Amino acid sequence: MVQQIETTKLLQLLQDNKRQFDRIILDFLPKGHTSPEITKLYEMMRDYPSRGGKGLRGTMCLLWCELFGGRRENAMTTASSLELFQNWILIHDDIEDQSDLRRGLPALHKKVGIELAINAGDALHGKMWELLIQNQRVLGSNLTLKILTEFSTMLNSTTEGQQMELDWTTGNKWDMKEEDYYLMVTKKSAWYTCISPARLGMLTASSESDGFKTKIDDFLLNGVVEFGTDLGISFQIIDDILNLMGEQSKYGKEILGDLFEGKRTLMLIHLLSHCEKRQRQEIIETLSKPREKKQLDEIRLVFERMRDHGSIDYAKRIAGQLSDKALSEFDDLTSKFEVDQGVSYQRARSLVEYLTSRDY
Amino acid sequence: MVQQIETTKLLQLLQDNKRQFDRIILDFLPKGHTSPEITKLYEMMRDYPSRGGKGLRGTMCLLWCELFGGRRENAMTTASSLELFQNWILIHDDIEDQSDLRRGLPALHKKVGIELAINAGDALHGKMWELLIQNQRVLGSNLTLKILTEFSTMLNSTTEGQQMELDWTTGNKWDMKEEDYYLMVTKKSAWYTCISPARLGMLTASSESDGFKTKIDDFLLNGVVEFGTDLGISFQIIDDILNLMGEQSKYGKEILGDLFEGKRTLMLIHLLSHCEKRQRQEIIETLSKPREKKQLDEIRLVFERMRDHGSIDYAKRIAGQLSDKALSEFDDLTSKFEVDQGVSYQRARSLVEYLTSRDY
Repeated sequence: MVQQIETTKLLQLLQDNKRQFDRIILDFLPKGHTSPEITKLYEMMRDYPSRGGKGLRGTMCLLWCELFGGRRENAMTTASSLELFQNWILIHDDIEDQSDLRRGLPALHKKVGIELAINAGDALHGKMWELLIQNQRVLGSNLTLKILTEFSTMLNSTTEGQQMELDWTTGNKWDMKEEDYYLMVTKKSAWYTCISPARLGMLTASSESDGFKTKIDDFLLNGVVEFGTDLGISFQIIDDILNLMGEQSKYGKEILGDLFEGKRTLMLIHLLSHCEKRQRQEIIETLSKPREKKQLDEIRLVFERMRDHGSIDYAKRIAGQLSDKALSEFDDLTSKFEVDQGVSYQRARSLVEYLTSRDY
Repeated sequence: MVQQIETTKLLQLLQDNKRQFDRIILDFLPKGHTSPEITKLYEMMRDYPSRGGKGLRGTMCLLWCELFGGRRENAMTTASSLELFQNWILIHDDIEDQSDLRRGLPALHKKVGIELAINAGDALHGKMWELLIQNQRVLGSNLTLKILTEFSTMLNSTTEGQQMELDWTTGNKWDMKEEDYYLMVTKKSAWYTCISPARLGMLTASSESDGFKTKIDDFLLNGVVEFGTDLGISFQIIDDILNLMGEQSKYGKEILGDLFEGKRTLMLIHLLSHCEKRQRQEIIETLSKPREKKQLDEIRLVFERMRDHGSIDYAKRIAGQLSDKALSEFDDLTSKFEVDQGVSYQRARSLVEYLTSRDY
């Protein structure tokens, strides 16, 4: 049995990191301007970064930096930029997905309107690159540009995944296969939640000031992709299950919100390919309605059908298999590259376990 | 009389440059993917870059590179990125401003819906940074990061300006002063149309491979801000006048579209502070209506009132003064830094003249 730190310690670590990311981000973002209109923009930009969250992606980056012998401080700016990435892209996602809530509060566009929210997202997006450029002072120009390149790869992937999902929902499409779902989730979630945070951590560890026995090169960076993909897909499936089953207070989004949104989850794809034709027609009819026309009882019925057809159990099983695979890939990677099995190793492994087994 | 190249030659130059920017951008953007949904994203990303335009900003960058002794080839990637900047930001602007047309064709969100268009804009935004990073090969890492920093400055400014304007339109505000207008236009237009293109050209000229007698430093870069501000404001005022007076076929947007949008132009601010109270109330009432409720004849009436109150003549006069000022600042700058008065100089000066005196 591999030694690991306890969950409470990991949660404490996440909380501490999150606090540090928040401080870096909120110190970095502009505060006030002589123009009241521009001050309002700054307030919008500071809104999502002030709302909390777990700091999973930034922490992943820090831990992978340490795992490969890097100094935690050297990864701080990049880790904070990952959190900033999530903040700006969620502003736009919430508009695109017509989400009403974000972390228990009204989504930004619900507060200020779509127009201002799109622009605030763009402004925050710009700030992310500006923060990343600050890496130059500590990591030097070449490494900074490598980090920028990884962010660009991550953004390409995320927008492609978002496009796939939006094309299905806005185009009222219901005939996607499981493989389509895995491609979408890999692009939309796995890259920015797991693959890039890990790779960015490794990149910051390759700074000249650090000494790791193995050279951090493309071979090593590419070695993380399969692990991160499995971990990311599993993470997303669990997140979607939580949306169906979790408590609102814990989860911070609307429960069954995904069904109100008509989101194509693994459970839904399973249900649609396993129920009888007439039921399938009925479900599609319900989910195709505009959000405000959907009744809670018909949405609940879809949920019950999922449960009755074993779709939720199926999704849990797949998530479990992917989690196991990700964990063994983590072990392979770390032993292959002779990573020291000290505290950093234990923390990183605990994070992987945590990501694949949140409460449900 | 300073020697200049003829307008037809300048137009030819713009057209040639534009063709080169287009080729660079369209070669750079992805074309197809095994996933049909992602292929659709690529098509959206290639839409605005395929629609034409004048290539003013990219050309400004090239000419200022040459003006300061740089090689045109060294500025090509940056100049093309400026055009890419305009493309992605216009996708979002068109949503925010509820514009129906862009360069004579339906705006992207009118073709594909707001959701997909926001995401396509984000994807294209990411590609802009990716293209800029390619500068590393030719210009080296340090200069590439300086160029990235200038883009970030430019984006901060543009989003702040857009915020000011959106706050006025979405908040139904009509009490802004001329100074507010100048601040808004400086931020929204002057930076990305004039100041940054010039500064970026100068930065690319500072590459080690080039030899200019004066060091391109912050002092020199800051020296361009006033010139670019005057030129940019004047350019924007002229653009707004064209929107009122130009021919649709030439201009590619809806005529009087700014009035349908309720855009706060210098003419409108002048009119509102010079007409009598009752008329002012009437105008505000008309312009406050939702776009689809506005009738052409009441919009025409606002236009006529502008003409009758001398608001258009006033805007022309201000634009003229700023143009003259920008030209003399151009002359001061180029003589102060002993710029060679050869072909590059003549072209750059012609572009300034052209920007401040388009057909109207």
